[in-house]
Amino acid sequence: MTNFLPKSVRSLIEEFSKLPGIGPKSAERLTMYLLHSPHSKIEPLGRAVMDVKKGIEFCRDCWNIAEENPCAICSDRGRDHSIICVVEEILDVVAIERTGEYKGLYHVLHGHLSPVDGIGPEELKIRALEERVSKGGVQEVILATNPGLEGETTALYLLKFLNNVKGLKVTRIARGLPIGGDLEYADEQTLTKALQGRAEY
Amino acid sequence: MTNFLPKSVRSLIEEFSKLPGIGPKSAERLTMYLLHSPHSKIEPLGRAVMDVKKGIEFCRDCWNIAEENPCAICSDRGRDHSIICVVEEILDVVAIERTGEYKGLYHVLHGHLSPVDGIGPEELKIRALEERVSKGGVQEVILATNPGLEGETTALYLLKFLNNVKGLKVTRIARGLPIGGDLEYADEQTLTKALQGRAEY
Repeated sequence: MTNFLPKSVRSLIEEFSKLPGIGPKSAERLTMYLLHSPHSKIEPLGRAVMDVKKGIEFCRDCWNIAEENPCAICSDRGRDHSIICVVEEILDVVAIERTGEYKGLYHVLHGHLSPVDGIGPEELKIRALEERVSKGGVQEVILATNPGLEGETTALYLLKFLNNVKGLKVTRIARGLPIGGDLEYADEQTLTKALQGRAEY
Repeated sequence: MTNFLPKSVRSLIEEFSKLPGIGPKSAERLTMYLLHSPHSKIEPLGRAVMDVKKGIEFCRDCWNIAEENPCAICSDRGRDHSIICVVEEILDVVAIERTGEYKGLYHVLHGHLSPVDGIGPEELKIRALEERVSKGGVQEVILATNPGLEGETTALYLLKFLNNVKGLKVTRIARGLPIGGDLEYADEQTLTKALQGRAEY
């Protein structure tokens, strides 16, 4: 059907379609956009794709991506090294950093426990967290895994061994109504959590 | 805020964000996806982006993109060279070819008339169409520009000179209710066109 399109065009459509959230129609549109762009716009994208992993490693402390080791956050003396915020993904670090509210360190698990998908504790950076905490110097661990079945399960799993660390405070990010949300349309679980987590004025 | 991300990661996010329909969040997600992919998956995408224009030219007859000149469609002796379907974009050719219903040739205008955007007849492949039709041998021109203000204006503009070509039939693709559409929710213009264009059983 699209056989009449030049091979280079067909293969870019195909490559774009492989990306998550990009269907065949979007892939076609992106390809046409690039086809109508000057080489000076196309080349930086191609280069950025090819080079995305260049010089990148995982921080040996927090397992975030980094250019140096330990990463910029872990080696920042201005941050509070006694607090560790545990998240599932690198983008969760990005989201929390955007708030500008958090000055502690992170620990990226690279996923959540999911027995159906064959993801157990060994597949995540859980042992690394154990080692990190048991070295001492950490006063609080904030469990910031996603508020869903897998995230809660993962948080509970971590809680088991974190509770055994003497003098360590373990907290969970608050779950409740999102800002701008509508109580009327909130699901029962969110509303339950919002009530349970109510705080005094 | 995302300063802690490696430079290569930030620049891919930036490049992805420049693409139409890809917001900053999608750009981040696409970048993370590639970051977690093996090099064997990243490289073909980068290469396909860089090479998309390689060996591509516009067909000197129909102005579709092509690897040879004239293009595969124009040089196909199995197709009906007496019918030309005029479309705005290359992707319109893709859409019509997908139906498998059309066996004539095409003419790609590369846009529509839009005085507000400074796009007049000279910016489109209109003169090329005039020359093509005046050479003779064409019996029907199907105007398949989009059914919207600009598309209709463009079609009417083309009609002016096409009507002066002796023995040429000029048609417009049907406008009406889309299949699966709901009469109740159709806008007035579409419904008007659907009534005007009614055909006998």
